[in-house]
Amino acid sequence: MRWEDEAWRAKMRVRLDVNGVWDARIGGHGLPLARFEAEAGRWAEAHAGLEVRREAGGLAWTSLPDQTDTARELTEFGRYAASRFENVVVLGMGGAAAGATALHAALTHPYWNLLPPVSRVGPRLFVLDTGDPVAVSGLLDLVDPGRTLFQVVSKSGTTAETMAQFLVFRRALVNLLGERYREHIVVTTHPTEGVLRLLARQEGYLTFDMPAEVDERFGALSAAGLLPAAAGGVDLAELLAGARYADEVTRDADPWRNPALMAAALHWLAYQQGQTVAVLMPFVAALTGVADWFRHLWAASLGKRLDREGRVVHVGPTPVRALGATDLHSQAQLYLEGPADKLVHFLLVDEYGREAPIPELRTRVNLPDAAARAARDQVVADLGYLGGELMSHLLQAEARAAETALTEAGRPSLAHRLPQINAFTVGQLLYLLQMQTAYAAELFGVNAYDQPGVEAVKIATYALMNRPGYAARRAEIEGVEAGRRDEWTI
Amino acid sequence: MRWEDEAWRAKMRVRLDVNGVWDARIGGHGLPLARFEAEAGRWAEAHAGLEVRREAGGLAWTSLPDQTDTARELTEFGRYAASRFENVVVLGMGGAAAGATALHAALTHPYWNLLPPVSRVGPRLFVLDTGDPVAVSGLLDLVDPGRTLFQVVSKSGTTAETMAQFLVFRRALVNLLGERYREHIVVTTHPTEGVLRLLARQEGYLTFDMPAEVDERFGALSAAGLLPAAAGGVDLAELLAGARYADEVTRDADPWRNPALMAAALHWLAYQQGQTVAVLMPFVAALTGVADWFRHLWAASLGKRLDREGRVVHVGPTPVRALGATDLHSQAQLYLEGPADKLVHFLLVDEYGREAPIPELRTRVNLPDAAARAARDQVVADLGYLGGELMSHLLQAEARAAETALTEAGRPSLAHRLPQINAFTVGQLLYLLQMQTAYAAELFGVNAYDQPGVEAVKIATYALMNRPGYAARRAEIEGVEAGRRDEWTI
Repeated sequence: MRWEDEAWRAKMRVRLDVNGVWDARIGGHGLPLARFEAEAGRWAEAHAGLEVRREAGGLAWTSLPDQTDTARELTEFGRYAASRFENVVVLGMGGAAAGATALHAALTHPYWNLLPPVSRVGPRLFVLDTGDPVAVSGLLDLVDPGRTLFQVVSKSGTTAETMAQFLVFRRALVNLLGERYREHIVVTTHPTEGVLRLLARQEGYLTFDMPAEVDERFGALSAAGLLPAAAGGVDLAELLAGARYADEVTRDADPWRNPALMAAALHWLAYQQGQTVAVLMPFVAALTGVADWFRHLWAASLGKRLDREGRVVHVGPTPVRALGATDLHSQAQLYLEGPADKLVHFLLVDEYGREAPIPELRTRVNLPDAAARAARDQVVADLGYLGGELMSHLLQAEARAAETALTEAGRPSLAHRLPQINAFTVGQLLYLLQMQTAYAAELFGVNAYDQPGVEAVKIATYALMNRPGYAARRAEIEGVEAGRRDEWTI
Repeated sequence: MRWEDEAWRAKMRVRLDVNGVWDARIGGHGLPLARFEAEAGRWAEAHAGLEVRREAGGLAWTSLPDQTDTARELTEFGRYAASRFENVVVLGMGGAAAGATALHAALTHPYWNLLPPVSRVGPRLFVLDTGDPVAVSGLLDLVDPGRTLFQVVSKSGTTAETMAQFLVFRRALVNLLGERYREHIVVTTHPTEGVLRLLARQEGYLTFDMPAEVDERFGALSAAGLLPAAAGGVDLAELLAGARYADEVTRDADPWRNPALMAAALHWLAYQQGQTVAVLMPFVAALTGVADWFRHLWAASLGKRLDREGRVVHVGPTPVRALGATDLHSQAQLYLEGPADKLVHFLLVDEYGREAPIPELRTRVNLPDAAARAARDQVVADLGYLGGELMSHLLQAEARAAETALTEAGRPSLAHRLPQINAFTVGQLLYLLQMQTAYAAELFGVNAYDQPGVEAVKIATYALMNRPGYAARRAEIEGVEAGRRDEWTI
């Protein structure tokens, strides 16, 4: 295994570049280096706090990279799935789904589902993280359930859309296959509790557990994310090795030797000076899913009404997902010129792994007159700088341009730099961002693992769907809605 | 035409629901109704200002819906393209691309590109708004250029990624087809200026103009958005009729009778009280592209360093795209419990047009003992409320739950309510959001149509790509980069 080679690991290390943040370099709205140094005690405390929590078993997700047996089973199952099914459909919402999309998109072909089957090492993947009836029923227009594996992911087994989707597709399978329908369902849920576990036992579904102590949104490296990745031919052993490697480099108490602690500290410092929007901006299309996944992780883990002492704090940075260079043509206008309320966090890559050489323009028409020749010359002059270049160089030039423009505007940015996109670096990246979130929760003083706001919406939904036991809540909601006025809809 | 029927138009009107914003109803961080009323003069001024600008020809995009001849030509061309090509690939960035994605995704099948050709009324659509070499070269793995139409969209003709993509695919076409390659290229650019126009003349490409006075990002209803929509079978006449209808309802000086002015006023009021994040959250998967398009429009039009008088203001709300119910499982936590710095803007639909009925769960196994029966009973009790329901009702219940939760938390939200998703309502929606942006620019006192920040990044990119004439800028950038320190990359 190449990841067992120390030199290769070092070459593949994901680096955190903080050149763009310091007031000492960028001036203006840069983060104060002096305060960063003065707060050394705060960083040490966050580190110590997280270590204590980890010792006490409160960070069960940190042990997911060690589950190499599970990874082997899933790899084997992925091979089986690739040989038997045309499609894998993940039924899950939020944290249950975001990791699957992030991993698969990062490590497979950018148009995976559209490739002809001979060019794909595995089945098409659909992550159905929606309750939209058009999307759900539309899927049945192109997916034959008889050639499809459905992975149902819900730790609690109560997520309404997931269970509704499950009922829809289960019925389609039963109608088509009778008793053999169960061979098309695999369940990822709590090892012992919840209705989905009960159903799995009763109806005999294959299961790959979500460990009891792991919160769904920190579960990208559980079967929720690993099964679809395995079906896509991703090397799970290398992925988990990358995560373990990131675990090693994020144990140090010194932020200068712990990139997750450093990034968390910088985001916390930015927040203190009113930079409450955290932009995650990959310059790699394959990492768009990682940015979406992070947006989920960051918002749900840090956006809290109460701190750990029960004080009302209403805290939490707002994550925004942008994509370079696409969003340079829009969001950059705001990031550079609008309010100085943002910290931009780039994801950059040194080698894209595949090149698109830009040809020179050779015009093929005859040139009838001097005007046409002049026009041709202008065309060549205007486009000539692109000919003979590489698309990757253009994209990297744009990333440098964006970093420089932010720096000149005195607006802070930091960057994770990946040497390549492979399972080892993506494993590192996800783990680094998870650990950064955990440290940030220490700094903000909140519980990263609860989600009372989400639960409140779930309960209101149950009430409006007339689920037994929620009648009182329904009456309350109707009371709120009674305050609506017709003239306020125009 | 159904849209010529007054009753149908009235039934299909997109409504703005502002019940969720007022402090008088939601308390807490609601928008002050008294101040809204006291600021009547400000709204009138914004309205008058925009009318003056429009009279003077400064809102050329408002005439796009009147270009019914162009729409007819494009409809005809769309039919031709559908009969001749397997794929349409849009080469464009930012505003040139966002409208195409928004319109096509809103009005075609959710898995359009994956449908078998017999189930599609038009070619597959790829909007290549990226410079990522993996995505660009990956497209050639599945698209045969000989069966593909490339639409090159850049008003200036200088957008680096677009022109680079153009050079890549032009070469592929020339190699394959020789002189006939030009039949596979259609250009949307400035009617008279720029290198792309020159090239089109010189090499004989078919062109559909971007009108000279229309800014790209307000050009969704130009050929940039209409050509791909036409190829997807969208009814352009109905789409433009919807936009014209929205134009009628956004001319009134009274915000209570002008939903675009009202929405702009509310966003401005929210911004004044620190609610600087504008979340656009459709509860319709088909409108995800519209939310992305709006995010672009809003950021680039309002995020400005200078106001119209040249004063340094660094103003602009931060648009965030969220998707209901997907993001209820993550962002809702932050929106409900985090800082009260957001105004949530929902996009809701009354009829989804297609249903996914949720079947009841009938377990098919024999029940050997009391424990299994108890388990079965629990499963039925926990999932029973879903059986017999519709997926659309679940999604709508979630939207109501989210609205209520925000209201109870004293956090403002407003909603556009679409009776259905069709060309007429989507045409209205896009136009309403454009007009809202134009009014907001009046209120914030900025020029909606410039983008100096974006231009700065473009120039820096030229410099780094060694484009002739930018050497001095390159030296400056290298000077900035010289301030980097090795020890700041960890």
